[in-house]
Amino acid sequence: MLPTIDYCLSHLSSFLTPKAWSTLPTLLAETPEATTPESEYGSWVLAGVLLTLVTIYAASKLGGELSKRLNLPPVLGELVGGVVVGVSALQLLVFPESGAVASDSLIMGILQQLGNLDATAVGHIFESQSEVISVLAELGVIVLLFEIGLESDLRELTKVGYQAAIVAIVGVAAPFLLGTVGLVAIFHSPVIPAIFAGAALTATSIGITSKVLSELGQLKSTEGQIIVGAAVIDDVLGIIVLAVVASLAKTGEVDLINVVYLIFSATTFLLGSILLGKFFNRSFVAIADKLQTRGALLIPALSFALVMAFLANIIHLEAILGAFAAGLVLDETDKRKELDQQVLPVADIAVPIFFVTVGAKADLGVLNPAVAENRAGLVIAAFLLAVAIIGKVITGWAVFGKPEINRLAIGVGMVPRGEVGLVFAGIGSASGVLDKPLEAAIIVMVILTTFLAPPLLQLVLDEPEGALEDEAELSPVD
Amino acid sequence: MLPTIDYCLSHLSSFLTPKAWSTLPTLLAETPEATTPESEYGSWVLAGVLLTLVTIYAASKLGGELSKRLNLPPVLGELVGGVVVGVSALQLLVFPESGAVASDSLIMGILQQLGNLDATAVGHIFESQSEVISVLAELGVIVLLFEIGLESDLRELTKVGYQAAIVAIVGVAAPFLLGTVGLVAIFHSPVIPAIFAGAALTATSIGITSKVLSELGQLKSTEGQIIVGAAVIDDVLGIIVLAVVASLAKTGEVDLINVVYLIFSATTFLLGSILLGKFFNRSFVAIADKLQTRGALLIPALSFALVMAFLANIIHLEAILGAFAAGLVLDETDKRKELDQQVLPVADIAVPIFFVTVGAKADLGVLNPAVAENRAGLVIAAFLLAVAIIGKVITGWAVFGKPEINRLAIGVGMVPRGEVGLVFAGIGSASGVLDKPLEAAIIVMVILTTFLAPPLLQLVLDEPEGALEDEAELSPVD
Repeated sequence: MLPTIDYCLSHLSSFLTPKAWSTLPTLLAETPEATTPESEYGSWVLAGVLLTLVTIYAASKLGGELSKRLNLPPVLGELVGGVVVGVSALQLLVFPESGAVASDSLIMGILQQLGNLDATAVGHIFESQSEVISVLAELGVIVLLFEIGLESDLRELTKVGYQAAIVAIVGVAAPFLLGTVGLVAIFHSPVIPAIFAGAALTATSIGITSKVLSELGQLKSTEGQIIVGAAVIDDVLGIIVLAVVASLAKTGEVDLINVVYLIFSATTFLLGSILLGKFFNRSFVAIADKLQTRGALLIPALSFALVMAFLANIIHLEAILGAFAAGLVLDETDKRKELDQQVLPVADIAVPIFFVTVGAKADLGVLNPAVAENRAGLVIAAFLLAVAIIGKVITGWAVFGKPEINRLAIGVGMVPRGEVGLVFAGIGSASGVLDKPLEAAIIVMVILTTFLAPPLLQLVLDEPEGALEDEAELSPVD
Repeated sequence: MLPTIDYCLSHLSSFLTPKAWSTLPTLLAETPEATTPESEYGSWVLAGVLLTLVTIYAASKLGGELSKRLNLPPVLGELVGGVVVGVSALQLLVFPESGAVASDSLIMGILQQLGNLDATAVGHIFESQSEVISVLAELGVIVLLFEIGLESDLRELTKVGYQAAIVAIVGVAAPFLLGTVGLVAIFHSPVIPAIFAGAALTATSIGITSKVLSELGQLKSTEGQIIVGAAVIDDVLGIIVLAVVASLAKTGEVDLINVVYLIFSATTFLLGSILLGKFFNRSFVAIADKLQTRGALLIPALSFALVMAFLANIIHLEAILGAFAAGLVLDETDKRKELDQQVLPVADIAVPIFFVTVGAKADLGVLNPAVAENRAGLVIAAFLLAVAIIGKVITGWAVFGKPEINRLAIGVGMVPRGEVGLVFAGIGSASGVLDKPLEAAIIVMVILTTFLAPPLLQLVLDEPEGALEDEAELSPVD
């Protein structure tokens, strides 16, 4: 915690004139091993993380509040706030994964000035800080899905299970077929890239959809539960589709063993965790009742969510599915209300990190028609966007036995592709399957569906006036 | 979020017999660039962080509850829980700073088995995961000091300001003089190492002391406020002492400009933030009242704390001092109660990461008398420990104008050295000033004062029976 002496000195130097500096004893010139670089960097990594978190919170609040005043879902504003501070605009929040280096980051520039740091040091600090923020964002979406699980009702979800499965399957099959066939027929794409692009159309971002539903107070409605259930199943299907197309792209054939394994492990995990959860419920309440120190309820609950997230991660599912299952299970206990209340502030500070980061990583440069390379992509993107919306919107009409249901809302709820769609584009690009225009088109499709879905969903859900106000009062949604 | 295909395959391999595996197409043999190593590692870094957090929470709860049952402060149990999972015992939680490599970490071993990872990959994952956990621990102690600031009373603290300053100054001067003179006179140490060891005796761990006071419901007592005030001043003095002895150790002379600069910036920061805070208070309430989205109160409050922590860090103070000042300022607003309640669950999950990490990093190997190298150190350690306790305990009798005060409690409250003491040992060791026995002795002194102080403080504060029970009900301490 204590800054080391050359950390202090390196600061001091920036406050002194060059002349004064030259007369200061250069304490460390003879003993470069005097302080470990790790501890030296450590203090700056913390400074970078602190500055980045403040940037993230400022962006999320400015964007969220503005969005709210415009009567749009706050999460849209958080995403846009992320874009403003991200790679597309201010470059305060950039990540090495997208090819950024330390000198691209405005925050690193500030630290470099403040600390008189050399390029190597800044490079290390940038990587560490990016790693920390990325993990915090992932923990943020884990907390979000845990909260969504706590707000969801397992019985209601089981009741709409078949409908959710139908919606998910249609929502994977329709965009995939429309996209692949359309690309081959209209744009004369080769088959394998067309299949890859079609696969990228199948994803649904459970995080964005469920956040909007929660903001509108619609999470517990039949429509809301069908959408969440379908998004969960869609996530599992997305992982299988990804495995299939990736192996197809690389070897020209499908690795059946892997596909069967994925289907089996995903089903076992989701059903198994809910069944075992019924037993765990009681032990959980018994444990929480016995604990006498601070966090007696929250720590065991969060630990359970983290264990489930870890297990889901380990068996090739997404960590967020485990957190969602943990939330569902704990929602069945008597401690539900108390837990909701305690998770709320944790979610308040953890979730914005995720949404702002998603926005910050979206490179809107691909939307610029002035760049010749983008133009071909934009035409394909327009086609993919149409397929992406139509292919998901029709899923609402696949719901049977619910004549009163808002079919349009269900379809629109499945539209945002979010970060899952970007993973397809990234893998496709890395494996060399996708050419530049097609890759750009997929990214444009992902960005537009992600940003269009929140306002569209609010529109078709015909928001009751009170819902957003309730949420603003920080009362736990119940 | 989605696992990549070779991530899936690398998993799959561990579930298949070698024969089956050999017949699987080795998808990536021809295209090693097919997935980026970062995204590949990313998923495993998250897995490592999740498993580490679960380990930390389990250790903190088991330790904390056990300590509570033994009628000891829970934070002692969290520290001991950290020792059990740390470098001294189970090696689940080890850090590269202490020289550990990936193969020393049991968690990394588990991940390696699960994912069939090679040594290079595990090395990268270990470093990233350690970096993330270290930053989370630092954020944890920032949240702790923010909460302590919120629980402290600025007016009460100002009232005892002179007493706190006296306690801090005596608590720095007495152990420093006793330790340095004693080492030279009794152990015939050379002067510079003796000065270094004396300096290491001056630190006070504000985190551990204030946590114990909070657990005992004594934070708002006159004694509690004197201890916290003195610990804050001591932290500032500690930074100055460190700067002095480090430059002395390296060049044989004291860098006066730096010392003056440190004293000036520290005083300006602490007084300035409190004065400016009086203005900021009103704007803060006005802003929080206008916000309509989730986290309307918590996000601006936490952002303020992070900005203050960042500023403190940048001007060579400790980040936690900034967070403490932020808490003090916000405690003066009408939003105090509401904020206390919302910070509580955040502190519940963030603070244990800090204490368990401190415990995990304490290497109890230096206490083993079977190692010949340790024996010389242990004799010096016994001397340092006596000086460390006596030098701080006498500070209580330096308090004037408060005849009714529990002088012993004030002195004992200043005893724990915590992580600050370890920084002295680390820098001394890196700069080559300290020989092995003296370095070991300092580490033993730091560990023992840290672990002895919580039960001693509880003993001398003659805990009222109700205090700990109240705290267990998760009601915000007010």
